[in-house]
Amino acid sequence: MANFEEKTLESKMIYKGKVIQLELEQVELPDGKQSTRELVRHPGAVAVIATTEEGKIILVEQYRKALEKSIVEIPAGKMEKGEDPKQTAWRELYEETGYQAGSLELLTSFYTSPGFADEIIYIYEASELKKGEQQLDDDEFVTNLELSFEECEQLVKEERIHDAKTAYALMYLKLKTV
Amino acid sequence: MANFEEKTLESKMIYKGKVIQLELEQVELPDGKQSTRELVRHPGAVAVIATTEEGKIILVEQYRKALEKSIVEIPAGKMEKGEDPKQTAWRELYEETGYQAGSLELLTSFYTSPGFADEIIYIYEASELKKGEQQLDDDEFVTNLELSFEECEQLVKEERIHDAKTAYALMYLKLKTV
Repeated sequence: MANFEEKTLESKMIYKGKVIQLELEQVELPDGKQSTRELVRHPGAVAVIATTEEGKIILVEQYRKALEKSIVEIPAGKMEKGEDPKQTAWRELYEETGYQAGSLELLTSFYTSPGFADEIIYIYEASELKKGEQQLDDDEFVTNLELSFEECEQLVKEERIHDAKTAYALMYLKLKTV
Repeated sequence: MANFEEKTLESKMIYKGKVIQLELEQVELPDGKQSTRELVRHPGAVAVIATTEEGKIILVEQYRKALEKSIVEIPAGKMEKGEDPKQTAWRELYEETGYQAGSLELLTSFYTSPGFADEIIYIYEASELKKGEQQLDDDEFVTNLELSFEECEQLVKEERIHDAKTAYALMYLKLKTV
């Protein structure tokens, strides 16, 4: 298989934030020419698809500043330094919804946007849920929803569910049952 | 439904590149407190799932600097200014693989990473293909592959197919046939 490796000639940190970093890399292309790559570094994230005993899917609605609107997603969050993705999954489900998962199974993972970012998302399926209280971060405002699969599909049609991890996790569940 | 709108108090452009822009926005939260949002602006992208007359799926392998490895994806690219997504789909399939699509149908779209980016990807299904010659950009090095659905699934297992748009498009095709 081809490789086409791009060798880094120079790397420049443009911005180091609390969520992402932006780096510019001057690279040597396979033909010897040069180009610049704009690279967003992200710590990676975890998303959790959890179904209640009543067969409802647990969702969160929150305002996404990047989109300037509220969308409906499965619970998710970025990994803290040194945190195992499974720990993140347990923590984020608990913080955003109050549910404590008795069991967490890794379904899949994917890179969200490999053209410019290294972000990877691990998707876990949670079961054996115990309901407690939401524990949100200071800058987090989240409403919980519990919807049937059919109601979720309706939100996909209306584009109120419109993000990669949520749509992907719902399709994954559907493929398990067909 | 909740809204939790975050009002922009101040916006600062950190970086304006050829692919992305990075902005920092100081926002007012629903409780009146303030926070900073790191926002990546992206022009949006299009991906194309195309099946040949022989039933093979057309893929491209390319080096992704953000991941420091080569991965296998469906043909895709970002929208040029003012370009209709369907035009982008036709153009990117042609440039990266040489195939000219007689028909293009929008399957779905999704935000790749709404926590920090506004990037949306439109996924088209291409059919009535006519084979021509690859027309790559100067800094693009891409190998074409034509694989059966089962071979694609194997690449997903090996994590050589590991990006949101490609995995999602493959699942979409699978759900059409089950």
